[in-house]
Amino acid sequence: MSLSLRILGCSSATPTPDRYSTAQVLNVLERFFLIDCGEGAQINMRRFGVNMLRINHIFISHVHGDHFLGLPGVISSMSMHGRTSDLHIYCHEKLHTLIEAFLATFEMPLEFKIIYHHLVSEGEPQLIYEDDKLTVHSFPLRHRVPTCGFIFREKPKLRHLNGMLANELQIPISKRFGIKQGEDYTAPDGTVYPNDTLTNEPDRACSYAFMSDTVKLTKAVPWIEGVDLLYHEATYGEDNLKRARENNHSTARQAAEIAQAAHVGKLIIGHYSSRYKNVQPLVDEARKVFPETYPAKDGAVFEVK
Amino acid sequence: MSLSLRILGCSSATPTPDRYSTAQVLNVLERFFLIDCGEGAQINMRRFGVNMLRINHIFISHVHGDHFLGLPGVISSMSMHGRTSDLHIYCHEKLHTLIEAFLATFEMPLEFKIIYHHLVSEGEPQLIYEDDKLTVHSFPLRHRVPTCGFIFREKPKLRHLNGMLANELQIPISKRFGIKQGEDYTAPDGTVYPNDTLTNEPDRACSYAFMSDTVKLTKAVPWIEGVDLLYHEATYGEDNLKRARENNHSTARQAAEIAQAAHVGKLIIGHYSSRYKNVQPLVDEARKVFPETYPAKDGAVFEVK
Repeated sequence: MSLSLRILGCSSATPTPDRYSTAQVLNVLERFFLIDCGEGAQINMRRFGVNMLRINHIFISHVHGDHFLGLPGVISSMSMHGRTSDLHIYCHEKLHTLIEAFLATFEMPLEFKIIYHHLVSEGEPQLIYEDDKLTVHSFPLRHRVPTCGFIFREKPKLRHLNGMLANELQIPISKRFGIKQGEDYTAPDGTVYPNDTLTNEPDRACSYAFMSDTVKLTKAVPWIEGVDLLYHEATYGEDNLKRARENNHSTARQAAEIAQAAHVGKLIIGHYSSRYKNVQPLVDEARKVFPETYPAKDGAVFEVK
Repeated sequence: MSLSLRILGCSSATPTPDRYSTAQVLNVLERFFLIDCGEGAQINMRRFGVNMLRINHIFISHVHGDHFLGLPGVISSMSMHGRTSDLHIYCHEKLHTLIEAFLATFEMPLEFKIIYHHLVSEGEPQLIYEDDKLTVHSFPLRHRVPTCGFIFREKPKLRHLNGMLANELQIPISKRFGIKQGEDYTAPDGTVYPNDTLTNEPDRACSYAFMSDTVKLTKAVPWIEGVDLLYHEATYGEDNLKRARENNHSTARQAAEIAQAAHVGKLIIGHYSSRYKNVQPLVDEARKVFPETYPAKDGAVFEVK
């Protein structure tokens, strides 16, 4: 398993005992990313065994309370738990200002640095994070305030070298990385071994896209094309289509239409309005369009293997 | 029952799934007062059936995250739930500034007014609220930052008029309020009826004092003398006396010593360090000094009848 998503909260607007506000932790190859941070996020981290000190990058989609009110508590608890390593926060610049106002009021000198990355919420997707294993892009959503979605993509993985064969042919260690990347191998006697005789297909690179809060945004379809997992808000059902439009939110059906158009692997819906005590009708509505739809639930884990 | 205290959170520092950060709702004669507002306060209001729209006055002891991080969420949810009546917040002026920064960042115009009352955290107790039934005083505690305790006192109640006798004597309605306040009654024929022949003792006026966070503060004893209910922090037990001193907190024993010296009715201890998974040892420690000690617990209700 290379990608695993833990839902910490999936309510819209106000948190409830069963559904906290939006927050989720994405684990990609043991790198932990916090996406949104609604009130109580740190409580549910504790409840579900998420070690907050392993989170080095926090992505906040937009500056509405239900997506960031847990952030001061997380920063404060990280400090109390002895954090020293840098913390990167990707957010609207307004939130940067607000968090700094918080820290100044706390009079709590942090033993770690916070590095802010201001999100661009218009135009084309932006590369906002990259390491040797994965990239993260932000892309503009359409909501009442500047809002970004995020796409996490593993980089193409190395091909599997047939170890037994490599040893038989006495391929030097120094050549093996290149072969895993797709190079052929030329033996000292001049024989050329085509790559596909030495290697097997690499593991699939996994991907995850987060879209909340937003109207149904057809423009985003090419950006999230083919991701394995898509989290898309479904604040309402079609029974509240008008309300969804007025509030710049989506219905479950619209979320499914986006998932279908973008040929994603699985759709997770969430950010439910509190009027839906039971979200099964939303799931049913989405599944009519896109059968591979699953409901977010606090504590639930979704994996891509 | 004229006074009832609902604990919404009783953890120190970081909230846990079982113990949220400090927050409590005091109901005095159907007036609802929120005292401190740690992260998740609105979630526990919902869990325990507290209607946040009935709260008109919020008292924040000091500007440490575990005592106020739930406030932006409460204000935001009050707004979403259609609040229009004034909201009074009693706090350090720094928190006033921070809340206003929040509201400006939200771009959420409130349909209600917030009226801030800046607390004075030195010198003598200050009257900060008064209506026809009760008073609230703040008084300085001693902690790492300016901190206030609060005392809620019902005003002396009216004596009970013997209604049957009053009717027999044909005492005019216009005279009855005065008699309930303690006046004698002079009949039209000149006969004087002493008050104690017409009335019975009034119900007791109840009182509640909140002291968190603080070191053991002997100076406060006369201020809280004789209150029915005292909530006093007991972050640590005597096993961590040194740590309590270093962090400007109290032990359970110290809380009990204050309760005993002030002749209070009952002591509630709380604000437990997360190192005490089981708080019974803290209760036992306090009861050795002050037997009427009870542990705070999320959701617990303490009543004065």
